[in-house]
Amino acid sequence: MTTDLDPSLAPILAEIRFNEDGLVPAIAQADGTGEILMMAWMNRDAVVETLTTGRVCYWSRSRRGLWRKGETSGQVQRLVELLIDCDGDTILMKVEQHGVACHTGRRSCFFRAVRNGTLETIADPELSPDALYGHVHAKSAQERSDTQAD
Amino acid sequence: MTTDLDPSLAPILAEIRFNEDGLVPAIAQADGTGEILMMAWMNRDAVVETLTTGRVCYWSRSRRGLWRKGETSGQVQRLVELLIDCDGDTILMKVEQHGVACHTGRRSCFFRAVRNGTLETIADPELSPDALYGHVHAKSAQERSDTQAD
Repeated sequence: MTTDLDPSLAPILAEIRFNEDGLVPAIAQADGTGEILMMAWMNRDAVVETLTTGRVCYWSRSRRGLWRKGETSGQVQRLVELLIDCDGDTILMKVEQHGVACHTGRRSCFFRAVRNGTLETIADPELSPDALYGHVHAKSAQERSDTQAD
Repeated sequence: MTTDLDPSLAPILAEIRFNEDGLVPAIAQADGTGEILMMAWMNRDAVVETLTTGRVCYWSRSRRGLWRKGETSGQVQRLVELLIDCDGDTILMKVEQHGVACHTGRRSCFFRAVRNGTLETIADPELSPDALYGHVHAKSAQERSDTQAD
């Protein structure tokens, strides 16, 4: 991918501080509402693909491969804007989320809040795992935990 | 700290998947506006202190110690609500930010956006480093990068 890299991306990539595993955390925020949908990880190729295609691509740590959000579930994220923080070690993406972000069928992965001293579930699923994954919904919990609604 | 831990916190802590360094990423979002202010890291003690005191406390990776946000700069974060994502490996905090979150004097650490193919600065500082840090503002860039407006 490096050989045909759009040269205008090089100065942007140079500002990102990937960690020792070559990854950077990326927060997805719904454009407009400001709701935080999820946090996942990107490697250099995922950043390049996201900026080039406008469709959000992460790095799956469990599958050790590029994870094109919505590839299995259809719950695609379109990039509206990509921001980098002051020290370059976190990415924030404003996105248009098609459907739901979470593998549980909820809009956001952040559906558990500490209230009254306990962890409460504060949002219901909008889609069932069957609707999201069909025959592949029986994949392991570990895979799911890495992939949200992949 | 473990010995006098409020027992009601144990089930909450049990849902957090700290990484191999004992840390979890924590996103701070301004309550009300939804603006993402910063992302930093917390260890178990930082989560306990934040939930117990209602004042946000992170873990400083560069200083290897608890980092009570605003300790030096006065730019305190009050916790409004703490959420945990579906797989327990990211925390989202809705906070009331006193002043600015970023060590550059900007409200948010995410002040650089990819626009027109380049990384543009999209927000100006609201405070000067002098106002934030006084005589300690000459600390190293590395220290600052870990601490935002500490």
